[in-house]
Amino acid sequence: MNQKLTYRYRVRLTDTDAAGVVYFANLMSICHFAYEETLITRGINLQEWVKEGTIAIPILHGEIDCLRPIYWGDLVTITLTPQFSSETELVISYELVTETNREKVLAKGQTKHVCINPQTRQRFPFPNQFREALLEP
Amino acid sequence: MNQKLTYRYRVRLTDTDAAGVVYFANLMSICHFAYEETLITRGINLQEWVKEGTIAIPILHGEIDCLRPIYWGDLVTITLTPQFSSETELVISYELVTETNREKVLAKGQTKHVCINPQTRQRFPFPNQFREALLEP
Amino acid sequence: MNQKLTYRYRVRLTDTDAAGVVYFANLMSICHFAYEETLITRGINLQEWVKEGTIAIPILHGEIDCLRPIYWGDLVTITLTPQFSSETELVISYELVTETNREKVLAKGQTKHVCINPQTRQRFPFPNQFREALLEP
Amino acid sequence: MNQKLTYRYRVRLTDTDAAGVVYFANLMSICHFAYEETLITRGINLQEWVKEGTIAIPILHGEIDCLRPIYWGDLVTITLTPQFSSETELVISYELVTETNREKVLAKGQTKHVCINPQTRQRFPFPNQFREALLEP
Repeated sequence: MNQKLTYRYRVRLTDTDAAGVVYFANLMSICHFAYEETLITRGINLQEWVKEGTIAIPILHGEIDCLRPIYWGDLVTITLTPQFSSETELVISYELVTETNREKVLAKGQTKHVCINPQTRQRFPFPNQFREALLEP
Repeated sequence: MNQKLTYRYRVRLTDTDAAGVVYFANLMSICHFAYEETLITRGINLQEWVKEGTIAIPILHGEIDCLRPIYWGDLVTITLTPQFSSETELVISYELVTETNREKVLAKGQTKHVCINPQTRQRFPFPNQFREALLEP
Repeated sequence: MNQKLTYRYRVRLTDTDAAGVVYFANLMSICHFAYEETLITRGINLQEWVKEGTIAIPILHGEIDCLRPIYWGDLVTITLTPQFSSETELVISYELVTETNREKVLAKGQTKHVCINPQTRQRFPFPNQFREALLEP
Repeated sequence: MNQKLTYRYRVRLTDTDAAGVVYFANLMSICHFAYEETLITRGINLQEWVKEGTIAIPILHGEIDCLRPIYWGDLVTITLTPQFSSETELVISYELVTETNREKVLAKGQTKHVCINPQTRQRFPFPNQFREALLEP
C-alpha cells in the first residue's frame, strides 16, 4: 500500500512571473519542498548524509502537468505518493490542490530518484531507515 | 521536417545547489531560456504580446531527464526541436550537451505549450508568424 | 515604538548553491517571505491590490549582510522591524537567527518600499489599513 | 585607477514576478552573473578553486537600488567597477543601463567579498592572479 503525505505551501511572489502565475519550473520546486519537508518530518536528515558524502539521492527524471493557473498568495496543499519501483529507485507522485476546493487539481508532478554513492556514482539500495520513513503510515 | 535550433548557456552559481550540481528544476528553466532566445532571434516579441493581453502561450507540461551531473561554469549547448502537434499545441524537445563532447548528452527536456486567449483561457490557433518563426530553416 | 514580528523558515535545497551555503541573493528573498507572510497574517491582501492595479509597493532598495553561513535544512527565525520613514516610504529591517542559538545572528537585511500608483508611478501615502497592520502590537 | 568591465544580459521570464517587472533579489543575481562572466573572461576558474576547497570568496554584503522597472526581454548592460579595499576585501559596484538609452540608469548594485580558507573560515590575501585579472586594462 502506498502512503499519502500532505504539505501546505503559500505561493511566494518570487514563484510567479510576468504572465501573472507561478512559473512552470517553480511548480517542480514546490513539489520538491513537499519531499524535503516530508523527510524532515519523518526524521531523515538527508542534509547531513549529503554533507558527509556517503550517499546522494539525485533526481533522474522530473515532470509537471500545469492544469490550472496558480497565483501569488495561493495556499496550496501538496499530496505525495512515494513508491519504491526497485531497491535503488524511488518514484514520487505529487498532486496540488487549493485549500478551498480540493476537487480542483491545480497541477500534477512526478520525480524519480536513485540512491547512489556520490564518489563512484554507482547505485546501491536505499537505506532501510529512508525506505521506512516514506512508507510508514 | 523539424527545425533544429541551438543556444549556448553558461551555468551560473545560482543554478546549482548544495549537492554541487545544477538543481533539477533549474534544468527546466535552462531549456526555457533556449526557447525564449530562439523567439527573440527569430523576431517574435512574445513579451509584447503577453503585455498587450491578446495572447498567452502557457506551458501545459514540462519534463526533464537528468542524465549526467552539470556543474557551475559549464558551457552547455541546448538543441531545440519544435513540433506543432496541432493548430493549438506546440511540443519542444531539448537536448543539452557539453561544448567539449557533443556525444555526451547531459539532459533531455520537453515542454508542451498551448496558444490561448488570456481573458477567456480558450485555445486558438498559433499565429502564422509564430509558427513560421519556429519552423523556418 | 516599532513593532517586532517573527517568521520561521526552513532552508530549501534550491536556496543553496555549489559553495554549500545559501546563495546571497536568496537571503534577500527569505527576508521578503517574512514580509509577505506578515502581511497575510495581519489581514493585508497585497496580491489582490496588485492584481486590481490600484496600488503597487515596489522595493527601492534592498541590502543584506551575510554574517554566518546558512545551510540546507536550517530552521531560521526572521525578525522584522517595520518603520514608516515618511507617508510614502517604509523601511523594514530583518534579523535572521537560528532556532538553537538566538544570540548568533546569521544575517541582517533591509528593504525600503514606496507606495505608488502603478499606472502613473507617482507616490501616494500608504493606506491606513496597511500602516496599522504593520504597526499594531 | 579602477577598471570598468561590461556584460550584456537578456532578462528572462523567470527573473520577473507577478508585478510585471524583475523581482528585486534577482537584480542582485544579475549583478553576480556579470561578476561570474568577468572572472571567466579574464581566465579565473573560481569554480575549480571552490571545488578543490582551497579558497572561497563569499559575499559579506550585497545591496541594490532599483531605480526604474526592468521588464522581461529587456537587454541590459551591466558595468562593473571592482576595487580592492584591502588585501582580503573586494568591493564591486554595478550599474545597469538599457542598450537603447545608456543615460537611464535602471539599477545600481554593490557586493563586498572576502577571501577565506573554507576549512578554517580565516581570511587571507586574494591571490595575485585574481587581483590582476580584475584590475588589468
